[in-house]
Amino acid sequence: MSRIVMKFGGTSVADLDRIRNVARRVKREVEAGHEVAVVVSAMAGVTNQLVKWCQDLSPLHDAREYDTVVATGEQVTIGLLAIALQAEGVDARSWQGWQVPIRTDGAHGKARVEAIEGAELIRRMRMGQVPVVAGFQGIGPDNRVTTLGRGGSDLSAVALAAAVRADRCDIYTDVDGVYTTDPRIVPRARKLERISYEEMLELASVGAKVLQTRSVELAMKQRVRVQVLSSFEERPGTLVVDEDEIVEQPVVSGIAYSRDDAKVTLRRVPDRPGVAAAVFGALARANVNVDMIVQNIGADGLTDMTFTVGKADLARAQDVLEKAREEVGFEALLADPEVAKISVVGIGMRSHAGVANTMFRALAEKGINIQVISTSEIKVSVLVGAEYTELAVRALHTAYGLDAPA
Amino acid sequence: MSRIVMKFGGTSVADLDRIRNVARRVKREVEAGHEVAVVVSAMAGVTNQLVKWCQDLSPLHDAREYDTVVATGEQVTIGLLAIALQAEGVDARSWQGWQVPIRTDGAHGKARVEAIEGAELIRRMRMGQVPVVAGFQGIGPDNRVTTLGRGGSDLSAVALAAAVRADRCDIYTDVDGVYTTDPRIVPRARKLERISYEEMLELASVGAKVLQTRSVELAMKQRVRVQVLSSFEERPGTLVVDEDEIVEQPVVSGIAYSRDDAKVTLRRVPDRPGVAAAVFGALARANVNVDMIVQNIGADGLTDMTFTVGKADLARAQDVLEKAREEVGFEALLADPEVAKISVVGIGMRSHAGVANTMFRALAEKGINIQVISTSEIKVSVLVGAEYTELAVRALHTAYGLDAPA
Repeated sequence: MSRIVMKFGGTSVADLDRIRNVARRVKREVEAGHEVAVVVSAMAGVTNQLVKWCQDLSPLHDAREYDTVVATGEQVTIGLLAIALQAEGVDARSWQGWQVPIRTDGAHGKARVEAIEGAELIRRMRMGQVPVVAGFQGIGPDNRVTTLGRGGSDLSAVALAAAVRADRCDIYTDVDGVYTTDPRIVPRARKLERISYEEMLELASVGAKVLQTRSVELAMKQRVRVQVLSSFEERPGTLVVDEDEIVEQPVVSGIAYSRDDAKVTLRRVPDRPGVAAAVFGALARANVNVDMIVQNIGADGLTDMTFTVGKADLARAQDVLEKAREEVGFEALLADPEVAKISVVGIGMRSHAGVANTMFRALAEKGINIQVISTSEIKVSVLVGAEYTELAVRALHTAYGLDAPA
Repeated sequence: MSRIVMKFGGTSVADLDRIRNVARRVKREVEAGHEVAVVVSAMAGVTNQLVKWCQDLSPLHDAREYDTVVATGEQVTIGLLAIALQAEGVDARSWQGWQVPIRTDGAHGKARVEAIEGAELIRRMRMGQVPVVAGFQGIGPDNRVTTLGRGGSDLSAVALAAAVRADRCDIYTDVDGVYTTDPRIVPRARKLERISYEEMLELASVGAKVLQTRSVELAMKQRVRVQVLSSFEERPGTLVVDEDEIVEQPVVSGIAYSRDDAKVTLRRVPDRPGVAAAVFGALARANVNVDMIVQNIGADGLTDMTFTVGKADLARAQDVLEKAREEVGFEALLADPEVAKISVVGIGMRSHAGVANTMFRALAEKGINIQVISTSEIKVSVLVGAEYTELAVRALHTAYGLDAPA
């Protein structure tokens, strides 16, 4: 007997048939003897409609009223799922954020969960009742409804799993697990049975859109075992767990890519103290996030400086830098949005040398030029021309031995 | 300076344009120096969709979950209207039932308001803030959301007006007031400037669908002055007030009609004690409401007994009576759904004789046969053949001098 939190996203509850399907899934776990709580999102499309209404009425709307409006999406789903569960003979009741309560800070529209009172839910789960909890919402210090920001239902599920001391948090979604890379690019990508929190975090932040980053951080902090699996198919998914639970740690677990970045190069910048601070200080004040940074060794007291920013921030970054041109003293600003960031991720890197070298060699063999390199303890990322994305991902997937047997 | 509760129904907030229109209406009252609170319904059509989802999932759904689902309709409107008001420069905030709180009993789906805490709302209204309160909903003793039953937003508005000691409760709707009769039948019907609670109750219960009956009862009990007016036109509506506020009381204020009843006649019933109890006891046990009752003077120890029941209950009434045939001992049961109930209503009747006689004479002049008569202190109702409905209403409207000048 385990205690499980099951979370279903918007596509899994998009209509009444799918809600009935979710009810049957939950029933199976209950009948297997588990204690179950469920977290649900709004029916697909509903939140977008509600957000649009708020924006149409006023682009600068009160975030507290926005939260009042958009939180209704999840409220509808919990009531409907509770009805569907009861129709299946399962004892169930709905819980809005303020009823649990799920206490958050007062940052309406992007609140952080501060505390969840789990005792009453545990008591009811022990009696065989299934709590159906609204994801994405909580109650703030002002006694008003808050929401956690887009994708916040994953976060609700993980936080609830921690609060009720669940053995596992199952995130049902429209993919059936975490893959070694995007199967649309590499048909021989393999589904991972297990992956560590750290690796999942790196994969999530570099483009794999399976789990919301904040929910993985929270799962890692609270040591909640998370399973990602499909709500439409009947097979085990991927377990996201502490690395101690992964017996055989591969050197590289996955290859991720992102085309959301743009490259900026400042040519012939004076090579003296304070220049980097002038550049990145100006960008930070304009709320432009900078990711990869390289600076060549200079000659004649001048150097080149290259870094990446989010594509959406590129115009703003250019504007900020042109205004700082005199202070910084660069000769030319080159911007290139046609780049892709390719990352290899694996906790095994910590104990294995030569991982980066394998990457560079594999890319060189395909004639792919590496524009920028950055590394972390468990990740090596390179920036390449956007047109090489698929070629690079496939080459690396093969080079690290990740291809499924043919 | 007055304190006003303004209530807007589903058609008045059916889309964003209409919500903006409501915001401008509210703004005008605020700018006129009044303290204003607003009560709103769900956007037209929304509640029906939510109800249908619950019914499709399970015809016998949990009323507590039904309430969780359908209460979202009003929650969306309060948030959107608060945003629209702020966009107009009006300080406003939304209030869900549990936030006020509006406390109800635990009869989910048809709860009764027990108490509304008005102090905080009054404090904010005094500061110039407009509370935008969700109609139709409250919070039950189980800390769960309750709803008041269809049309419950009128009730919410009147109860709120009592709680904040408002000078007036303005009910904005798609008609512009209470008329002497249905203007679709009598083009020369006049809008009443004022009408007493008692008259409004009689008119509401006999077919005028302007205000929900329970809200008029509550207004009368709490002495809340109610105004019915159009949300689409700019003119005063009808005030529903204590009769002391009506200086010149007409003998008859209005003519109402209803085609929702059916006539039942039991022929040749034994004229002895206990027979009426046997008939109406059996109907009451089957939850059939009986309205008008007449019993002729008998001959040969036998009599005829005629009464009306709701058309929807007719089949059930016939079934119940056939089963009680032996006990009651009637010879034949005649059922006639083709009847209309025509009522003349007016508090002036109390002090004027001959009101019923005017009615009978006017109907006789048109050759309309009266099948059943019943009277109350301020009302005379007759049952006639359904095909005479319009003719009877027009004849009475003229006979009592209610026609507007041509």
